[in-house]
Amino acid sequence: MPVKTAPIANEFDSPEMRLAEWTGNMKRSVIREMLAVAARPGILSFAGGLPAPELFPVKEYSRAVEYVLANDPRALQYGPPFPPLKSHIVNLMEQRGVACSADQVFITTGAQQALNVLTRLYLDQGGTVMVEEIVYTGIQQALSGYDARILTIPSDLEIGIDTGAIEAYIRAGERPAFLYAISEAHNPLGVSISAARKAKLVELARMAAMPIVEDDPYGFLYYDEEAGLPIRALDEKWVIYVGSFSKILAPALRLGWMIIPEHLLPKLTVLKEALDLETSAFIQRTVSAYLDAGHLPNHLIRLREEYRLRRDTMLASLELYFPPSARWTKPSGGMFIWVELPGHVDTVKLLGIAVNEEGVAYIPGSAFCVETGMIGRSKTSRADNCLRLNFSKSDPEMITSGIARLGRILHRYI
Amino acid sequence: MPVKTAPIANEFDSPEMRLAEWTGNMKRSVIREMLAVAARPGILSFAGGLPAPELFPVKEYSRAVEYVLANDPRALQYGPPFPPLKSHIVNLMEQRGVACSADQVFITTGAQQALNVLTRLYLDQGGTVMVEEIVYTGIQQALSGYDARILTIPSDLEIGIDTGAIEAYIRAGERPAFLYAISEAHNPLGVSISAARKAKLVELARMAAMPIVEDDPYGFLYYDEEAGLPIRALDEKWVIYVGSFSKILAPALRLGWMIIPEHLLPKLTVLKEALDLETSAFIQRTVSAYLDAGHLPNHLIRLREEYRLRRDTMLASLELYFPPSARWTKPSGGMFIWVELPGHVDTVKLLGIAVNEEGVAYIPGSAFCVETGMIGRSKTSRADNCLRLNFSKSDPEMITSGIARLGRILHRYI
Repeated sequence: MPVKTAPIANEFDSPEMRLAEWTGNMKRSVIREMLAVAARPGILSFAGGLPAPELFPVKEYSRAVEYVLANDPRALQYGPPFPPLKSHIVNLMEQRGVACSADQVFITTGAQQALNVLTRLYLDQGGTVMVEEIVYTGIQQALSGYDARILTIPSDLEIGIDTGAIEAYIRAGERPAFLYAISEAHNPLGVSISAARKAKLVELARMAAMPIVEDDPYGFLYYDEEAGLPIRALDEKWVIYVGSFSKILAPALRLGWMIIPEHLLPKLTVLKEALDLETSAFIQRTVSAYLDAGHLPNHLIRLREEYRLRRDTMLASLELYFPPSARWTKPSGGMFIWVELPGHVDTVKLLGIAVNEEGVAYIPGSAFCVETGMIGRSKTSRADNCLRLNFSKSDPEMITSGIARLGRILHRYI
Repeated sequence: MPVKTAPIANEFDSPEMRLAEWTGNMKRSVIREMLAVAARPGILSFAGGLPAPELFPVKEYSRAVEYVLANDPRALQYGPPFPPLKSHIVNLMEQRGVACSADQVFITTGAQQALNVLTRLYLDQGGTVMVEEIVYTGIQQALSGYDARILTIPSDLEIGIDTGAIEAYIRAGERPAFLYAISEAHNPLGVSISAARKAKLVELARMAAMPIVEDDPYGFLYYDEEAGLPIRALDEKWVIYVGSFSKILAPALRLGWMIIPEHLLPKLTVLKEALDLETSAFIQRTVSAYLDAGHLPNHLIRLREEYRLRRDTMLASLELYFPPSARWTKPSGGMFIWVELPGHVDTVKLLGIAVNEEGVAYIPGSAFCVETGMIGRSKTSRADNCLRLNFSKSDPEMITSGIARLGRILHRYI
């Protein structure tokens, strides 16, 4: 009797159950899958965008939680955005050179929710949007399901997003729903947008009545001179600033914010409610208590010192161990270095080798490439020979060891 | 010289800035606005759907937080869904009479996120969906922006959603993307769906290949005999169960879950990532630690005792103080009583009077009425003479006093 073989089910199949049409073309997050591989025990991973857990201000935050739970009867209840937290954010923004009022602060459940809400606010089904060719995957996920026309913009590794390309699109009549830009220490490229290009972005935004969604998770993490002014410092009408506590306090707080023109508040409020009703009052009040106690400035100094050391260690190790044909960015902040290998190298294949032979992981550049038209259409990938390295998570010794091991792989295989 | 009058700006106007088209018809949450009124100092409010804050297990949760922060180095880091929390949820579901595996548990940032994610999964732009005529506003918000055709179903105040009406639609060829149902202690109606109607729902779901989104925030809050089996207990293929810690622990945790057929996991994972990357590892691990310590069963007993007393106090006060022309539901669980006044009464107008003259607030029934076609089309309101009373937030003394005051208003004005 023949053995029956069960049909191999595609894990994306939903037998008989009808799903929304667009989900048929859904892609999994390549990065998440790679992070799963990199999370195997014994793997030294430069893959994730993780902050260093040993630097989390556990004691200080623990004290803030204890205080709030003991003294604030509204800490566990439903509640509106917490005004003292908004004031703290106004102060943080002032440190970034941005003048704003508490009424312009919009609290979100992490910065990813801000990207989601802003996409809902600006982008129609089938609408047009402008992003860099190589960019943070979170914005790509936020854009999925809109069948959007995605206009991709190249980026210069020294001065950031190509404002000439944006201008050319605009002069050709394009009027995107918004432009997404990471102003400082770009993920994954590590580049900060030059002051001149930031000024040009604002000029273009005004010219084309085009909102700029400015993502700035790394603005407080600078390791040379102070980070450049955010684009929002140059224009309060067309720039929506997105900030986050994930990299300066802790990701598990899932706490972020936007700085918005006040006239957007009512709609954004309704949009956010539809997503998750509200951001945890408990998290808002405990983070606010942590900030009340005045711990953040010293914490930021400590983060900058340690991350500067890790960045410098990684840059020195790259110099020492990587072949001369490799090039990389020298970020002035953030968490990432972008490496370009010779054109024939396929960093996806190389990742398997690096994990298996040397127990080291990174993210291949192609994981960050935007697919224009988002779903099922051609990829404008120019990053098959590139990779992203995270330097914030590993200590200097691990960095030296890991880059040496990656260097061995490169010398062996390219 | 004539004085120039500034044009009266609609707060929803966004001068010059183009927004997504559908936002032009966006509605604010009527409930949130009413809650703002009801939150004025001195107002005795039966409006919000708030649990009693004095019953939050502050000490026990505080100890769980302290323990986790001191001992779990991953508590503040990015992290995947926490397996021990999933196991706890499997146990909770077992108490509700539902057999499921940890692989079928999907953690969400509150139940509202589950409703949002499920809508994204099932509903196409312009697609069809089935909900009750009078229903929780959160599902209405989740459905906004899809230009959905909404088929509304009447509800019986004794046995719940009208399965005959659903069947008639299906026999007429309708194949909605999903049906939304609150199985126990309906918000706002207070009714639980009868066992016979639950069985019929499953029969209809199978017949029409129609997923049922079963919202069950009140299943653990029963005050007479144990709550009925969830619909999910009768079918694991067509029923997606949505659960929440908001009402049994604390809303500020923003922690909910779904029980899903495993084949949906990959898509739901991507959909959720686009919304907020992940649900706070800190919250997941601290709630799991609270559950590890075994506090929940006694906490639930305490909640049921106190809420039973409050429900009974409110029912007795209604009997005593409301005019004979008023009728109301007698919920076996949850947080709400639904009151019907004579047909000519307008409970929106009456709310202003109640707040101003007696300092008491409720939510008018019309706030819960679904607008078919969702945006700008005609309302199938049958609830202009109805109102929702919350009995969980106020203590028995306040309940007696508040219902007496509302009764005075009714005797005076209707």
